Amino acid sequence: MLTKKLVLQTDFGLSDGAVSAMYGVALNVDANLGIFDLTHEIPQYNIWEASYRLYQTMTYWPEETVFVSVVDPGVGSDRKSVVVKTNENQYIITPNNGTLTHIAGEVGIQSIREIDEEVNRLPHSGASYTFHGRDVYAYTGARLASGVISFEQVGPELELTSIITLHNPKPYIDSGVVYGKIDILDVRFGNIWTNIGRELFLSIGVNFGDLLEVTIIKNDRQIFKNRISYGRSFADSRLGEAILFVNSVDSMGIAINQGSFAQAYHVETGINWKIEIKKADK
Amino acid sequence: MLTKKLVLQTDFGLSDGAVSAMYGVALNVDANLGIFDLTHEIPQYNIWEASYRLYQTMTYWPEETVFVSVVDPGVGSDRKSVVVKTNENQYIITPNNGTLTHIAGEVGIQSIREIDEEVNRLPHSGASYTFHGRDVYAYTGARLASGVISFEQVGPELELTSIITLHNPKPYIDSGVVYGKIDILDVRFGNIWTNIGRELFLSIGVNFGDLLEVTIIKNDRQIFKNRISYGRSFADSRLGEAILFVNSVDSMGIAINQGSFAQAYHVETGINWKIEIKKADK
Amino acid sequence: MLTKKLVLQTDFGLSDGAVSAMYGVALNVDANLGIFDLTHEIPQYNIWEASYRLYQTMTYWPEETVFVSVVDPGVGSDRKSVVVKTNENQYIITPNNGTLTHIAGEVGIQSIREIDEEVNRLPHSGASYTFHGRDVYAYTGARLASGVISFEQVGPELELTSIITLHNPKPYIDSGVVYGKIDILDVRFGNIWTNIGRELFLSIGVNFGDLLEVTIIKNDRQIFKNRISYGRSFADSRLGEAILFVNSVDSMGIAINQGSFAQAYHVETGINWKIEIKKADK
Repeated sequence: MLTKKLVLQTDFGLSDGAVSAMYGVALNVDANLGIFDLTHEIPQYNIWEASYRLYQTMTYWPEETVFVSVVDPGVGSDRKSVVVKTNENQYIITPNNGTLTHIAGEVGIQSIREIDEEVNRLPHSGASYTFHGRDVYAYTGARLASGVISFEQVGPELELTSIITLHNPKPYIDSGVVYGKIDILDVRFGNIWTNIGRELFLSIGVNFGDLLEVTIIKNDRQIFKNRISYGRSFADSRLGEAILFVNSVDSMGIAINQGSFAQAYHVETGINWKIEIKKADK
Repeated sequence: MLTKKLVLQTDFGLSDGAVSAMYGVALNVDANLGIFDLTHEIPQYNIWEASYRLYQTMTYWPEETVFVSVVDPGVGSDRKSVVVKTNENQYIITPNNGTLTHIAGEVGIQSIREIDEEVNRLPHSGASYTFHGRDVYAYTGARLASGVISFEQVGPELELTSIITLHNPKPYIDSGVVYGKIDILDVRFGNIWTNIGRELFLSIGVNFGDLLEVTIIKNDRQIFKNRISYGRSFADSRLGEAILFVNSVDSMGIAINQGSFAQAYHVETGINWKIEIKKADK
Repeated sequence: MLTKKLVLQTDFGLSDGAVSAMYGVALNVDANLGIFDLTHEIPQYNIWEASYRLYQTMTYWPEETVFVSVVDPGVGSDRKSVVVKTNENQYIITPNNGTLTHIAGEVGIQSIREIDEEVNRLPHSGASYTFHGRDVYAYTGARLASGVISFEQVGPELELTSIITLHNPKPYIDSGVVYGKIDILDVRFGNIWTNIGRELFLSIGVNFGDLLEVTIIKNDRQIFKNRISYGRSFADSRLGEAILFVNSVDSMGIAINQGSFAQAYHVETGINWKIEIKKADK
């Protein structure tokens, strides 16, 4: 039965043999392992986005799935290589560099162990200090997913407090205004995704079709300020019109129907990109 | 036995977690399902190209394969979500928005059913109106491919006449001239692919090595007019020389050997891009 | 048991249906075949890079894996289609056009056979002379990987001397200077990879932390000349600093920590791009 699953995420791209070498290493551990991709197009060194993509995707995968995420600007430094077990009984193998931010905050982590590279490292790979994705992470991920080692055999348990997370302020409401930030783009379609969840947004008393006043601020400068209506989906707006909608992770997004909101207003992402939403005056 | 196959096509790209979430949903339906990609690089909202890529690819896959195609500018509108069974005993799950144009015209469709989203929708996904690719199409595709539901259980049968197709005029011959249009590019190599089939072309009496006079017209303006020889393959032309050849879907294409014909002459695709081919005077 | 493996490499990209058609053809041969990708982003017609990516990747895959590589500017010419068995008991199916350069030189080839296209060609594909990747290579690869044909049944054996290889001068040492060339880029990260192996480099007497004088020459013009230190990994350098390191194929590379060395100095690859390394004066 093909029920063991390993899912890989990196910032390596697919234009050379790096990801394929990881597949080969994993299949040498277990020829029947099911190996899949999350994405290999994480922007280089972008730990925040690696963390977000795990959060966006993992919940749709079966329990016991093993995820390997390699966005690792500190490869070769003393950053630790770890395996965590989440509260949804899935595993993540990653450098402990902030990649666990969203899963730790939104799903929760049961237990964390440091990879003991004395035993969990591809044999004869000792001279390379630059490709832990292949030599440590894919190898250990395959061994864990296929049952060659148990979670306990990964290495020594660490304190949950040792999990490194990136600064990630929460959205909140004050005097009928929802305050949040722009977490990420739906790159290909130019939609922006905020950290404001649907329920928080609805708590200011909004219905489909209502107009909201939306302000986007970078540092202290207003980038966008206009009225946008809240719709079920893009089809509720006219071509080229902006719309506020619930995205696929149950948070609030803004799109332009068949256009790019991000390009239209030069909106980017991160903790310096704040958004404020309130009900528009009649 | 791993004989159930689900093949996914979208315009989502692979740079975020959207396609991987579709994989996860499908594997939660059946952990042993074989899932594959057609392409995820359909240009956004380009229904014509989605239709063409199905036509280019499906015939090489086994019978009973289930294809899911999600190029869906009308997501959330009243466009219907359907499953069709083709005359080659394969299935396509898609919004009924023109994506079936080529398969309906060239292969034929036996039967069409509307997806009953009361039963064929990922549980607990009701609040999202924007990601039917994951919540409806991948979920239903996996259930159909794995035998959890039969074709009949997808939902109610529709009339075959309800299939929506894009305008797609046929090529024809008049007074020894073949009239057609430019359907699509072989993007990476810059070759143009016409809708003129090999047999129609040959019926004007052409042999390998013959010179043809080729005219390309956008609206009423000539873009290209020159003699091109008909060759077996690119190796029959010199480096940088144009050649008329039979492409991999048995239609006529034009290439420049190790160059890009499309770039060289700024040729694009669609019903406004016409091509005329006749035998050159001796 | 899913133990038969077919790995595909092309310069087709993934934006149309070409690679998916190859998958379909292979699965029609054997519905249980495990099919994987090396990369499909080889730059068009770049035989050198196809050869290098095989070398970079194959050793991490299990014995008996069948690799198909289709970078084939001569499709339709009299270049031969061949299958080789390597000294590591893996197979490569490819046009005999130089794609075997690195594997022949670094791993070694036991035996080479020409594909007999009378028997090893997709039925009813005779009219297309332009898509041997689908009609000959994927089809034959699937038949070989799945055991439908044996290696002997591919076609007649050729002399090992018939293997076509690209010019590939070896690195050497003279008077304490290591002379090599720049073979390829780690494209996404902008690192350059030389043909100078770790052991050859170390033989001039270098330790981690030592400063080396590195000169990069295109034809007879110096492109770069500066001191670079030899480190374990990028973490041994400061942000933006260049570093000489052992790459994932056990050769010497140069990176800029979180920058692009190739872009910074406009460095490209090939036999005209030479590099000289010697110990720096104290």
